[in-house]
Amino acid sequence: MPDELTLHPFLWRATHLAGDTSVVCRTPDGMHRYTYTAFGERVRLLAGALQARGIGPGDRVATLGWNTHQHLECYYAVPLIGAQLHTINLRLSPETIGYIIEDAEDRLLFAAADAAGTLASIEDSLQTVTETVWLDATAGDDVPGETYEDLLSSATPIETWPQLSEDLPAGMCYTSGTTGRPKGVEYTHRMIYVHAMTVMTPASLNISPEDVVMPVVPMFHVNSWEFPYAVTMAGAKQVYPGVSPTPEDLISLIAREGVTLTAGVPTVWIDVLEALDPSSDALESLDRIIVGGSAAPTGVMRRYRDEHDVTIEHAWGMTETMSIGSVGRDRTGDAEPFVRASKQGHLTPGMRMRVIADGDDIPWDGESVGELLVRGPNVVDSYHAKAGETAFLEDEHGRWLRTGDIVTVDSDGTLTVVDRVKDVIKSGGEWISSIALENTLMELPEIAEAVVVGSPHARWQERPVAFVVPSSGAGVEVDRVRSMLEAEFPRWWLPDDIIIRSEVPKTATGKFDKRSLRPAAAESDLPFTPGETDT
Amino acid sequence: MPDELTLHPFLWRATHLAGDTSVVCRTPDGMHRYTYTAFGERVRLLAGALQARGIGPGDRVATLGWNTHQHLECYYAVPLIGAQLHTINLRLSPETIGYIIEDAEDRLLFAAADAAGTLASIEDSLQTVTETVWLDATAGDDVPGETYEDLLSSATPIETWPQLSEDLPAGMCYTSGTTGRPKGVEYTHRMIYVHAMTVMTPASLNISPEDVVMPVVPMFHVNSWEFPYAVTMAGAKQVYPGVSPTPEDLISLIAREGVTLTAGVPTVWIDVLEALDPSSDALESLDRIIVGGSAAPTGVMRRYRDEHDVTIEHAWGMTETMSIGSVGRDRTGDAEPFVRASKQGHLTPGMRMRVIADGDDIPWDGESVGELLVRGPNVVDSYHAKAGETAFLEDEHGRWLRTGDIVTVDSDGTLTVVDRVKDVIKSGGEWISSIALENTLMELPEIAEAVVVGSPHARWQERPVAFVVPSSGAGVEVDRVRSMLEAEFPRWWLPDDIIIRSEVPKTATGKFDKRSLRPAAAESDLPFTPGETDT
Repeated sequence: MPDELTLHPFLWRATHLAGDTSVVCRTPDGMHRYTYTAFGERVRLLAGALQARGIGPGDRVATLGWNTHQHLECYYAVPLIGAQLHTINLRLSPETIGYIIEDAEDRLLFAAADAAGTLASIEDSLQTVTETVWLDATAGDDVPGETYEDLLSSATPIETWPQLSEDLPAGMCYTSGTTGRPKGVEYTHRMIYVHAMTVMTPASLNISPEDVVMPVVPMFHVNSWEFPYAVTMAGAKQVYPGVSPTPEDLISLIAREGVTLTAGVPTVWIDVLEALDPSSDALESLDRIIVGGSAAPTGVMRRYRDEHDVTIEHAWGMTETMSIGSVGRDRTGDAEPFVRASKQGHLTPGMRMRVIADGDDIPWDGESVGELLVRGPNVVDSYHAKAGETAFLEDEHGRWLRTGDIVTVDSDGTLTVVDRVKDVIKSGGEWISSIALENTLMELPEIAEAVVVGSPHARWQERPVAFVVPSSGAGVEVDRVRSMLEAEFPRWWLPDDIIIRSEVPKTATGKFDKRSLRPAAAESDLPFTPGETDT
Repeated sequence: MPDELTLHPFLWRATHLAGDTSVVCRTPDGMHRYTYTAFGERVRLLAGALQARGIGPGDRVATLGWNTHQHLECYYAVPLIGAQLHTINLRLSPETIGYIIEDAEDRLLFAAADAAGTLASIEDSLQTVTETVWLDATAGDDVPGETYEDLLSSATPIETWPQLSEDLPAGMCYTSGTTGRPKGVEYTHRMIYVHAMTVMTPASLNISPEDVVMPVVPMFHVNSWEFPYAVTMAGAKQVYPGVSPTPEDLISLIAREGVTLTAGVPTVWIDVLEALDPSSDALESLDRIIVGGSAAPTGVMRRYRDEHDVTIEHAWGMTETMSIGSVGRDRTGDAEPFVRASKQGHLTPGMRMRVIADGDDIPWDGESVGELLVRGPNVVDSYHAKAGETAFLEDEHGRWLRTGDIVTVDSDGTLTVVDRVKDVIKSGGEWISSIALENTLMELPEIAEAVVVGSPHARWQERPVAFVVPSSGAGVEVDRVRSMLEAEFPRWWLPDDIIIRSEVPKTATGKFDKRSLRPAAAESDLPFTPGETDT
């Protein structure tokens, strides 16, 4: 059989065909800067250190790390010796982190220095962990164990990489678990290979050897949307923003390193925009920003284009699809800018979909709504420890993942995510898209953030309630907001209450935390609830 | 396990996400033009017709076809029902075609109308073939059997595609076999999937959904360098030049269809250039031409850039690597244009290489030469019927294909093919690159084509002899040619004879046929052979 699909050629290609290309990382001491050749040498050191500790096939090595070059080294050394890299979201609650480590039975832990407190508080959950190594600790940090740099400085580099089966697990992430316990999702070498190759194609993220790529999406968030693998295989320069970068840090990294492509949730890019003078040329090198998780307002997309000549593209994906599953891209000659790039776009090559409502495929007319089902070589067909079987549907064509996303499909197959199955507001037998309302609210200059959730209602089943955060220095007039919404939506879609807040809660992955707002929505007396004749 | 890597998502993506995009083909009756949706319907019809004839897994269906939309339909219908598409080079001798059909035990044959004579002459070799269907026959053609269009018009479309294993053979090509018998090379669904995805990436051919792609490289030549699969998966418009296009036909197709990317052997593009007025804007849409098989002269690259703003990129590949294995690309900021794009460049993602001489890896210094060994998921590890075991080498890292190509490697891993193992000229213990001499000869305005082969020599072992074809209307002065060569090469590299011919023989794939020139070289009295003191 021809070569198996493992991560070996990723490291080979970067170190042999892009050996002089840079990997840079922001650190407290300034920029850490090295070449892929030097990167490869440190990966060999780390692999040697892990093997010396008896780590190998069957073992999980967890990371609680930020976007750093050391974390990138873990991305390669761990799977290349046959072990499995389990990336854990640092922003989860200590209890959830403890549950995840226990469930995954992690053996070794690489942790950022600022996770020391969290880990100390969940010591009982670390029974399977034999050792914790501190990833980005510096001389001043008081960490209870060996630092990553000490580990490397005492290591002997691995000489010969073991031959690996492509079906060996290489990665693992847990779903954010807004309902129920987080579920483990495992990625084999083969899945990462095929997905990273797909992500490189122009029909997906279009990553070229000449790009300079800065992944701002956290490396604990579904392999940082596959950038650490795809960009390395492309042999392109990579820029890591380090621990807790400010908007000014990101701007400075883009300007100094010549970043052409970056990615992250919209709020990051809204903050960057606010921190920039419209006439600044700091983003001159930047070509595209990939956003996901939630939608970037059209106003933000327009300002990035008009003020900085930067394109924002929306992507859709899940932990279960290894992140990127579709990308929205404007095409040359599109009459209305931002319309196509605001949608979730076309599935990336190799994926297929069905969209169903009540068990039947919906028409692709841009209006009908249904739940998105997907399949592909980057779509898992089960969870760790057989959790979540209900997320799959079998038909005569095979096994499909139920995404939990409510979408419309244009006649050309373009996806628009309308809502989550659990967030869509069911009012009088019809569906109201909380996301559509939020996006329109956030188009208003006086509103910085908006969240719409359902409030239980005896007559209508559910009614929408909006929570809005005013823009800095702005005042929000509820009447004006309602009349603006009325211009775009049917009257019965309008929120029955608009509650002004100084901030809205977010989940550990930066999304609006709707669950925690539902009690407040339920307590509203719904001053604007429509009567029978209003609908 | 997540989805297998089969051709199903290729057809799904084009018909569902690019349903309105065009596939066009030049025919004797004008342009045939349809959408991917209509293409998909005809693929279903063809699949139904094949199934009705009992064709399925385990069967080989051969084509002797030109670059047409019907041939593209065969590329999908045959493997999608689990059978294997065996594309045969129409330009081979009847005897070789007969040998190949016998060796592959083909069951059904799709043949171009102009192959009728060939097939009639090798009737004895067609014992396994139950039926021949005539691919591009029109009313006027006298063909002994059913036409392709008749087959489709009487067919019932397949309703449900069978589920397929990714390891099922999907394609087959024979090596051109300049030494010994042609050898069968087989491609599984998985190999085509992974290679097509790789070919789409910017580090390889960079195929975007917005491209308009015209594959001029024959569809019988290693899956037309994977274009029919990669371009369909990208959902890009495809343009097929049909039977025997002239340079004027190609120019007209580029201009009328807005072709952005095309590919073929250099001679095609030299002819196109000759047929164009330098001030013509017929190539306005065209961005890149991928060439392979032999090198495009720098003068041709320069004229394409200066006169038509078109980039020529060199690719390297073999039947055994499923075509494209490396691509030479200039990078922004390169000081010398055409230098990098004239080389065979970097291996495409997923491939790895060694370059050895006398069993040892050579230094990557841009000067040392050795034989290129490659591996990757697109590299076969055996031939049909276990022919050619000597083409492989096993080491502790796995199994490598011996390419038979002599290369140098720059320090950044850039490949330059210097010669074939069998063509390099061994003189006095050193190697002389026949290709380097040929390329420099073809840079001279008075020389259209040049071939250099070794002539046996008692003292030096071998000495180079050049055969040159003068440019139209030009005269070749041997003294001037020799003094030009002397400026670039050591004296002992200079050909010992320069023989002027009105044409030089070519193989069925358009390469110079060196084997047939060796007798003439051996008969030369080598007027310029160096003495001992000249070396």
